[in-house]
Amino acid sequence: MFLTVTLNAALDLTYGVRHLEPHASHRVRNVTQRPGGKGLNVARVLAALGHRAAVTGFVGGGTGRELRALLSDSGGVRDALVPVAGATRRTVGVVDESTGDTTQFNEPGPHISAAEWDSFLATYRDLVRAVDDPPRAVALCGSLPPGVPVGAYAALIREARAAGVPTLLDTSGEPLRRGLAARPELVKPNARELAEITGSTEPLRAARGARRRGARSVAASLGAEGMLLVTRDGTWQAAPAERLPGNPTGAGDSAAAALLSGFAEDLPWPELLTRAVALSAATVASPVAGEFDAPTYARLLPGVRVSEPNEPDIPA
Amino acid sequence: MFLTVTLNAALDLTYGVRHLEPHASHRVRNVTQRPGGKGLNVARVLAALGHRAAVTGFVGGGTGRELRALLSDSGGVRDALVPVAGATRRTVGVVDESTGDTTQFNEPGPHISAAEWDSFLATYRDLVRAVDDPPRAVALCGSLPPGVPVGAYAALIREARAAGVPTLLDTSGEPLRRGLAARPELVKPNARELAEITGSTEPLRAARGARRRGARSVAASLGAEGMLLVTRDGTWQAAPAERLPGNPTGAGDSAAAALLSGFAEDLPWPELLTRAVALSAATVASPVAGEFDAPTYARLLPGVRVSEPNEPDIPA
Repeated sequence: MFLTVTLNAALDLTYGVRHLEPHASHRVRNVTQRPGGKGLNVARVLAALGHRAAVTGFVGGGTGRELRALLSDSGGVRDALVPVAGATRRTVGVVDESTGDTTQFNEPGPHISAAEWDSFLATYRDLVRAVDDPPRAVALCGSLPPGVPVGAYAALIREARAAGVPTLLDTSGEPLRRGLAARPELVKPNARELAEITGSTEPLRAARGARRRGARSVAASLGAEGMLLVTRDGTWQAAPAERLPGNPTGAGDSAAAALLSGFAEDLPWPELLTRAVALSAATVASPVAGEFDAPTYARLLPGVRVSEPNEPDIPA
Repeated sequence: MFLTVTLNAALDLTYGVRHLEPHASHRVRNVTQRPGGKGLNVARVLAALGHRAAVTGFVGGGTGRELRALLSDSGGVRDALVPVAGATRRTVGVVDESTGDTTQFNEPGPHISAAEWDSFLATYRDLVRAVDDPPRAVALCGSLPPGVPVGAYAALIREARAAGVPTLLDTSGEPLRRGLAARPELVKPNARELAEITGSTEPLRAARGARRRGARSVAASLGAEGMLLVTRDGTWQAAPAERLPGNPTGAGDSAAAALLSGFAEDLPWPELLTRAVALSAATVASPVAGEFDAPTYARLLPGVRVSEPNEPDIPA
């Protein structure tokens, strides 16, 4: 079993409009809704890869009821979300059907009280310490809702380590900075998030900086350039053999699912990286945002090129 | 008691963003949600004016549950909505806080089955024929959801007339065209809607055209220019003494509430028009979209100028 944590889960709405025009009124032609938030996406991908996965985090209000109903309908993911008084946030992605571009609106999320945070900590502790079905690894994903302490992920990483469960952290800003200090087994930032934390815009240098700040291994996503993996055992870079057009939504969450499952299976690092890159590209190629195309994944796997990255030039 | 019909009710969401930028991701700074759809707004204004009001139409799904909870919390309006299998639509208004401009996204609404339409007709018949508390007037408002026959409003107008209850119709396009033929007591189109139906962009000529097509009286909203009223008894135009800046959302619904209540009270036409113009302007001036500012309404009432409109030039 894998456990994913989504402290700021969302009901993700996607609106298709003919053409986005600021300050105009738009008839929405297509509406889709799905359970959202990075950890929920990671759990869904894990389930689609044949793993058992449980999700925890906060859920509340009418939007929370809708999220739980959709999660239950989608099957394969165990719902261990913790009820709160506030309402689960929505995100609205408006897709301009004439260009394919998306304009995104993200609600901030409900305020979490100190008592609700304590209740979540107790649930989380029970989940990571479960005697009969302990998690093989935990993914800690996404932003923090208002009220949750900024050191939340650091506390969750320490709690997992005390139970002997490895963690993957995928967040940004101060929660990432604090989380690094608690020494997670894996972090999965993108180049921008790495630069924010380390001050370096050169990915290899920045990834090494993140290791110095505490991460055991750093998988940095470089968009269409693939992914860079910096570990104690070596450094690798990988990219798909072909660039597939599509929607990058959820590609990072698919990469996180591949990294987490590969890590738990003790895969060699280059193979783990290969899976993450192929699954991420197969997610971009899928017509549905956040889902991966299984035949594309199988096709891309053998073609992923893994290499050792060039050392960056030393600045003068 | 007044009855308002909203066949395509909505959960109205308003998102405040710092600055709207197409194809970017936005953090929503403020979220408000309220029961929406023109008929629901009209009923809320009637209640705020001290009248008893009931709403009917369709409601369904998780969004429908939220709408009913908000309606019940707001108080003063009786919920006679008819449950359906589909989910109540949402509308999302994105307010650019740097300019005050709103970009609107409207979901289409649930598909209504023939059986659901029949069930609504039975409920509506009971409401307009109620022996103990019959409605003084009915407002028929807004667009039709998918599946509802385009002649829906015509049928509802005839049903009300058979029960001796006058109707106000506020819709557009083909539902308005068909509705006119059933001879409602009042229609409240804007200049664009009138032009669509009559082919004339000159408001007085267009309003007379709408009367020829069946409406007993036509109250045409002219935006900041006020309102034009064409009846069997005479023709009047009115505008507020001052132009107040603000948000025009719901101004038309406030005008409809004033017209409906004034008509039921047998007010002289110029006085009815005065109330509609003042209430509409007080709604624009209110900080909350769709609500009117009572002191502003009281202040504006005595200053509304009513005049007989100039005849349009006869085109060569």
